[in-house]
Amino acid sequence: MSVTSPVLESVPSGFSVLPTPPGFVRYCGGFYLHDELPVLGVRIGEHLLNSVRIVHGGFLATLADSAFGVVFKRQYGLEVPPITVSLSLDYLGAVREGDWLEAHVQILKFGSSFANADCLLKVGDRTVLRATGIFTIWKGKVPPRS
Amino acid sequence: MSVTSPVLESVPSGFSVLPTPPGFVRYCGGFYLHDELPVLGVRIGEHLLNSVRIVHGGFLATLADSAFGVVFKRQYGLEVPPITVSLSLDYLGAVREGDWLEAHVQILKFGSSFANADCLLKVGDRTVLRATGIFTIWKGKVPPRS
Amino acid sequence: MSVTSPVLESVPSGFSVLPTPPGFVRYCGGFYLHDELPVLGVRIGEHLLNSVRIVHGGFLATLADSAFGVVFKRQYGLEVPPITVSLSLDYLGAVREGDWLEAHVQILKFGSSFANADCLLKVGDRTVLRATGIFTIWKGKVPPRS
Amino acid sequence: MSVTSPVLESVPSGFSVLPTPPGFVRYCGGFYLHDELPVLGVRIGEHLLNSVRIVHGGFLATLADSAFGVVFKRQYGLEVPPITVSLSLDYLGAVREGDWLEAHVQILKFGSSFANADCLLKVGDRTVLRATGIFTIWKGKVPPRS
Repeated sequence: MSVTSPVLESVPSGFSVLPTPPGFVRYCGGFYLHDELPVLGVRIGEHLLNSVRIVHGGFLATLADSAFGVVFKRQYGLEVPPITVSLSLDYLGAVREGDWLEAHVQILKFGSSFANADCLLKVGDRTVLRATGIFTIWKGKVPPRS
Repeated sequence: MSVTSPVLESVPSGFSVLPTPPGFVRYCGGFYLHDELPVLGVRIGEHLLNSVRIVHGGFLATLADSAFGVVFKRQYGLEVPPITVSLSLDYLGAVREGDWLEAHVQILKFGSSFANADCLLKVGDRTVLRATGIFTIWKGKVPPRS
Repeated sequence: MSVTSPVLESVPSGFSVLPTPPGFVRYCGGFYLHDELPVLGVRIGEHLLNSVRIVHGGFLATLADSAFGVVFKRQYGLEVPPITVSLSLDYLGAVREGDWLEAHVQILKFGSSFANADCLLKVGDRTVLRATGIFTIWKGKVPPRS
Repeated sequence: MSVTSPVLESVPSGFSVLPTPPGFVRYCGGFYLHDELPVLGVRIGEHLLNSVRIVHGGFLATLADSAFGVVFKRQYGLEVPPITVSLSLDYLGAVREGDWLEAHVQILKFGSSFANADCLLKVGDRTVLRATGIFTIWKGKVPPRS
């Protein structure tokens, strides 16, 4: 996504482009992390829709999982995001092309073996998905970025 | 993914290309549905990896959700896949570039108000994710395909 | 549980005894519903412990499920509690004998086919369990109470 | 439950009384562990019903959680059952007074930091609940039994 695209221009103030390594998230296209709040946002493009023209549930899972990762990483100064042990997703409403979608993360626990957090995906005041996650910290050698 | 790519040539026998509408799943790249079994397969490309070079959890969620949808659609002759009400994912192992990943679906219930199913994601005999889903049947007007 | 028991005397103000029909919940012993807030409380007795002297996870599930039910019933004037379709429980901390345990319910959606809610179990300010539930409304004939 | 009760006499062959410490599970009344299979059974008494005369969801959660615990304990020779990190329950059908209810456990993973298992609750061939759990091994000092 070009920084001069109309999409970027329509990002709410307080959000900055989230740098992403090559891979799956980069395709998903243009995540924006709030500079202070534990909120990850994205403007919905047509490439994220499913066969009935609403956002694919798999993308919503990806956004929630990414939001958990970046919020844990920033809040606890982790070198890499924690590993997802479990992700539970309740789909509450549809998201459509052009919507500005935000993932609001709340960390419930950051223990020695597990971390727990909740995430609400919202379009404006409307909650469209509730996610909860269980995570553990990556203990392997961090591989070189490609 | 080109139908003449080396990747397609390396697909196990019994699987056929799953036609996908434009959108999120198409990018994910080349799903293959088994001609008889409730199994959806994919060859893992680099575009599906995360920052530590294993497959992104969001893609695994997408594959599981897609597998539930196509299996319900084929088994019950639905016009469109059922709507995902809830998806619960337990991550059991890593998936790497080049792996042939299969989603094995088992339908537990297909009731009047909702349906339940389990899904195991496997690389060979190794189970890498366990998913369970709750679904309901799309009752809205099916929008025209773009 | 006798209304003159020391346990009842130690219930915080604002809570009233929740009348329960015969059956499983009655044994669990003395639930108290807050008169205004969507909060169900209980004083932990020894009969609720497990083999390592902390509250049994099954009781915490029972309390969360009961809290969802009574809060939906009161808020929407239902004749009986909604039917639990799915319950997801993350155990965050131990609860011990003598603790005053509260279940704080937040309803996320009350739709035509499904309802969704979250519940946090707390001992003071400490969150010991996070529950999420999916529910549907009982449509069968309500059986006579025994 | 008395060993000479009619209930015990109606237990299928291959099951033996599961000794339980004082506490929550003992009340639930008479669990029976299969001598070889990873199956925990119980005969449903009136004390396990809810307000609409079907088995309370909290008891089904208790049975599933207990089944996970005893199966892990027996299969891996643990001194105490593993700690439940997360429990996810999908309710598929009603259980009624007099039913013989079985919890069939399948262990998916027993790793260094956590373990995963599935459980199907069945009345005859009818699946009434699907549970999945995430567990970790108790590392604290085992307290003396009361």
